[in-house]
Amino acid sequence: MSYHKPEAKTVQDLKDLAQKLRIHSINSTQASKSGHPTSCASLAEIMSVLFFQQLRLNVKHPRDPSSDRLILSKGHAAPILYAAWAETGLFSVEDLKNLRKIDSDLEGHPTPRLNFIDVGTGSLGQGVAVGAGMAYVGKNFDKADYRTYVIVGDGESAEGSVWESLHFAGYYNLDNLCVIFDVNRLGQSEATSLQHKMEVYRDRLESFGFNALVVDGHDIDELCKAFHCAANTKSKPTAIIAKTFKGKDFPNIEDLDNWHGKPLGDQADKVIKHLQGLMVNPNVKLAPKKVGKTGLAPEVDINNVKLCAPPNYKLGDSVATRLAYGTALAKIAADNDRVIALDGDTKNSTFSDKLKNAFPERHIECFIAEQNLVGVAIGAACRRRTVAFVSTFATFFTRAYDQIRMGAISQTNVNFVGSHCGCSIGEDGPSQMGLEDIAMFRTIPGSTIFYPSDAVSTERAVELAANTKGVCFIRTSRPNTCVIYNNDEPFTIGRGKVVRQKPSDEVLLIGAGITLYECLAAADQLEKDCITVRVIDPFTVKPLDVDLIVEHGKQCGGRVVVVEDHYQQGGLGEAVLSALAEQRNFVVKHLFVPTVPRSGPPAVLIDMFGISARNVVLAVNAILKK
Amino acid sequence: MSYHKPEAKTVQDLKDLAQKLRIHSINSTQASKSGHPTSCASLAEIMSVLFFQQLRLNVKHPRDPSSDRLILSKGHAAPILYAAWAETGLFSVEDLKNLRKIDSDLEGHPTPRLNFIDVGTGSLGQGVAVGAGMAYVGKNFDKADYRTYVIVGDGESAEGSVWESLHFAGYYNLDNLCVIFDVNRLGQSEATSLQHKMEVYRDRLESFGFNALVVDGHDIDELCKAFHCAANTKSKPTAIIAKTFKGKDFPNIEDLDNWHGKPLGDQADKVIKHLQGLMVNPNVKLAPKKVGKTGLAPEVDINNVKLCAPPNYKLGDSVATRLAYGTALAKIAADNDRVIALDGDTKNSTFSDKLKNAFPERHIECFIAEQNLVGVAIGAACRRRTVAFVSTFATFFTRAYDQIRMGAISQTNVNFVGSHCGCSIGEDGPSQMGLEDIAMFRTIPGSTIFYPSDAVSTERAVELAANTKGVCFIRTSRPNTCVIYNNDEPFTIGRGKVVRQKPSDEVLLIGAGITLYECLAAADQLEKDCITVRVIDPFTVKPLDVDLIVEHGKQCGGRVVVVEDHYQQGGLGEAVLSALAEQRNFVVKHLFVPTVPRSGPPAVLIDMFGISARNVVLAVNAILKK
Repeated sequence: MSYHKPEAKTVQDLKDLAQKLRIHSINSTQASKSGHPTSCASLAEIMSVLFFQQLRLNVKHPRDPSSDRLILSKGHAAPILYAAWAETGLFSVEDLKNLRKIDSDLEGHPTPRLNFIDVGTGSLGQGVAVGAGMAYVGKNFDKADYRTYVIVGDGESAEGSVWESLHFAGYYNLDNLCVIFDVNRLGQSEATSLQHKMEVYRDRLESFGFNALVVDGHDIDELCKAFHCAANTKSKPTAIIAKTFKGKDFPNIEDLDNWHGKPLGDQADKVIKHLQGLMVNPNVKLAPKKVGKTGLAPEVDINNVKLCAPPNYKLGDSVATRLAYGTALAKIAADNDRVIALDGDTKNSTFSDKLKNAFPERHIECFIAEQNLVGVAIGAACRRRTVAFVSTFATFFTRAYDQIRMGAISQTNVNFVGSHCGCSIGEDGPSQMGLEDIAMFRTIPGSTIFYPSDAVSTERAVELAANTKGVCFIRTSRPNTCVIYNNDEPFTIGRGKVVRQKPSDEVLLIGAGITLYECLAAADQLEKDCITVRVIDPFTVKPLDVDLIVEHGKQCGGRVVVVEDHYQQGGLGEAVLSALAEQRNFVVKHLFVPTVPRSGPPAVLIDMFGISARNVVLAVNAILKK
Repeated sequence: MSYHKPEAKTVQDLKDLAQKLRIHSINSTQASKSGHPTSCASLAEIMSVLFFQQLRLNVKHPRDPSSDRLILSKGHAAPILYAAWAETGLFSVEDLKNLRKIDSDLEGHPTPRLNFIDVGTGSLGQGVAVGAGMAYVGKNFDKADYRTYVIVGDGESAEGSVWESLHFAGYYNLDNLCVIFDVNRLGQSEATSLQHKMEVYRDRLESFGFNALVVDGHDIDELCKAFHCAANTKSKPTAIIAKTFKGKDFPNIEDLDNWHGKPLGDQADKVIKHLQGLMVNPNVKLAPKKVGKTGLAPEVDINNVKLCAPPNYKLGDSVATRLAYGTALAKIAADNDRVIALDGDTKNSTFSDKLKNAFPERHIECFIAEQNLVGVAIGAACRRRTVAFVSTFATFFTRAYDQIRMGAISQTNVNFVGSHCGCSIGEDGPSQMGLEDIAMFRTIPGSTIFYPSDAVSTERAVELAANTKGVCFIRTSRPNTCVIYNNDEPFTIGRGKVVRQKPSDEVLLIGAGITLYECLAAADQLEKDCITVRVIDPFTVKPLDVDLIVEHGKQCGGRVVVVEDHYQQGGLGEAVLSALAEQRNFVVKHLFVPTVPRSGPPAVLIDMFGISARNVVLAVNAILKK
């Protein structure tokens, strides 16, 4: 498509509007007495062109699935994003003065408490992954015309996560993605390492598979032309590398150090007067483009996702829960064509390849780049376009803890599945063992944590996770475990199962995954010595079935032994302790992996590190004296 | 320096030695019935040339500070690394058959349990950061001749952390660093995204500031020449991009899918026979180069680091603990010239800039790239060359959780300092609030966690951390807090302080940071209603002063209230619950931040999210009924 320059009047209006956005950013940060007006100023022309020349928006329904997406990865420039939306008419310009106030959703950094925000930003370097996820869905699943724009700060482009995502976007030819780099030269505490070396940015982006355009980020014409080029470049994403100045058009502030994250204070009036003097029409008012009539995103129903067939095992079968995960994943994918899986080159270990084998187009290989893996999933799940399951080794999710944390702020519904938990993986050694994954996912606000112990409960965990709001985590194990539930056994979030009991029980044992079986084996051994114990499978660690534990714990004299293939801190044991915190007359022995394990056979390791049936027997004998 | 080709005899010996290393790798993984022989095979010529042509080693003392460093970032190729060291004579070739056995330190992935390993690898993409840290120290602090080599797999080069580190190495002109990319085309579950696109690797590496050399990774001549070029290239690090084949020289296995992480099984004998057939001298024996007599690393003493002057505050002064951190950091840096600080462009918020102002050359700016920040620190602290303090916002350490986790496996002594903890940071909002940092650092085996509440205790925490083995974490707060300790108050790891007590106390309150002051304010209010409570400042959350809490808790009727500016899971509250797990007759009320906070004034937020003095008073009144 050939390019027609916008008319001079349009260009002048966009210039004026950029100054208006600068003024709003100053006023709102003056009102809040905090915030980042200089980081907004470098973006003013970019925002003006984006909102009033490029983005096709549905201002009445900002999350219209057919509208263009914009992610402000440099979330600290929130004031200018809010200002642009106010100028579209979504809410009143007066509201901007409520920035950062306790009763306003115009927070310091954007969150989806606002109806025009898809994901929380503010921890840097995460926006490109989210945008790439949206673009992947737009191109491959929605097959719709909407485009995705991401604004990245030059400071945050030092984050490796950004380069993971750029590579992903280049590899998958996401030509519906446009990443704008706001190269304003200055970081928080000093200049960025690359300052204004625009050619270095260009070389890097080209080598990562982008159509890379270097522009003057304060020139409306150049920006319009670059966005046009982006929209008309096929089979490659575009990067617009904008040379800008922090605090642009703020006299005695522009391009100077020590103005990061500071309102202008007593300089504000003077600066605003200067900006007004630069405007031709101080009352300029523009409207964004509307969503077109064609190329719309299809309607999607991701409610009530079901296993297409119930679990099909025999009691006593020996099946790894990670394998049952793969089986269940393929089953829910057969039920709903918006179920997708993402993996980081571990699909033949996590068994997410079972979905790939059945529905190859719905498996997104993200290679060994877990931060991008998680970010793409969060993007793919935005606006309820997909039900996303992300899998890798449980411990490798530590790589994406910040993304998962931000996922909670983003109100994401992504499901995480971590295999190879605990020292029971054996010979590969401690670098591959998930021993802190429960602790990590428990800290995520609103998360649900499944720790199924057999294949039947694993399949139900997958089905439940698909329909549960918030972050879900399913912890799967490497070794085979025995099927102990009937195929029609019902499972509910927050409800555990008593898997062994007698009226004479003196101690309550709680285990999950491989330690549930160690508890059962210990119970067998103890019974030979005429000690009977009760055993609970919690099914979900969060929420934990507090009532069940309290009730059965009391029946066992308040004696509880918790055994887990996890470090002491933040896992099942401390979850139980939290549940019992306000109960007097309980005593808890906690068996856990006490230190960095080593390579060796699984059975040897679980005994050496204190979580085998033998250790449980010792703990029961010790607690009986309490 | 002009290049002289090695003699034909030497080349043939190196070729033979490469085959010998392949055979060792097959034999050891056959014995262990697990492991990654094909990932070793692609590296055989590289290892042969490195060990017997390049590296200057002290085989008797592998951690000689003057010897060259080698980091095998693709840790799953451990068998060939072990084989190479066995061939140097460090230990017997027979030992290789103990690979992955429970009583051998030849684990599945390398750990520093072996005296020739500096850091644990196996979680991918971390080696370059560590190597860059070593190289930075070698060039800038040791000013010594040793060189650092890092071997990176092509699969793991998808990790963004790798690109953070490459940028760092390029930016700081680390010409004593050589990164070898083993581009063997195949990942675990499918081909890598770039396969054998050698020119893409070259473009990327050049754009990241490297001298980039593409070579045939199985050609001894080319490798020797490339290493020579690397050693003689000034002001730039070198990348040797080696085109290789996974399973090289293994007939019917080379370059084929589905051979990742599998011993050769019944193919082994045939393959070994084939390899032997390729050798001219099956008994080839070579020796590595020795460490030279000049350019040695200086002796360094990092024991007994002290504040150069004691804390100097007045009781009642109002000082943020983050500021006291900066003050103390500069003081220990004045005491010992091996104290260094690293930051991720937050130095004017964490106050690590106080060290920079005093000793600019000892502050390493790592820009916004936390994974590399942590990795560089771990590298810098290896072989006890420096005492490294790493600072950023507490919550941004989640970005480097995997690096910190591997740091524990690496037995690192790095000190982490996280500022801006909790919702008490206020208007910036939840993305900037550390609310899971204690949980994260508590899971690190052997970690020590300081949570000082005033400036005096913060300075002592810094001094103690500098001298403490293992990972240390110091949590600092943004708001000013009152100085409550005398300048000569002694502090000890694992010992808390009773900061308020009366014989009539009915409830024990435990708080830290800003919540300690909320506890004290609550105590004042309660006293007006004739309820007296005891208050403990734990000082360290890990180890926690269990005896003190049990003793004083008992004196308060077993009633404990814990208040923390952190999520429920894994923090101070659950640490207290773990400490009291085996005590009957305790009841604990835990006040914590229950959900994602929002932007607002600190005082409003801590009340809204349930951790203010008012909330403590309510909790005390409630627990008195228990």
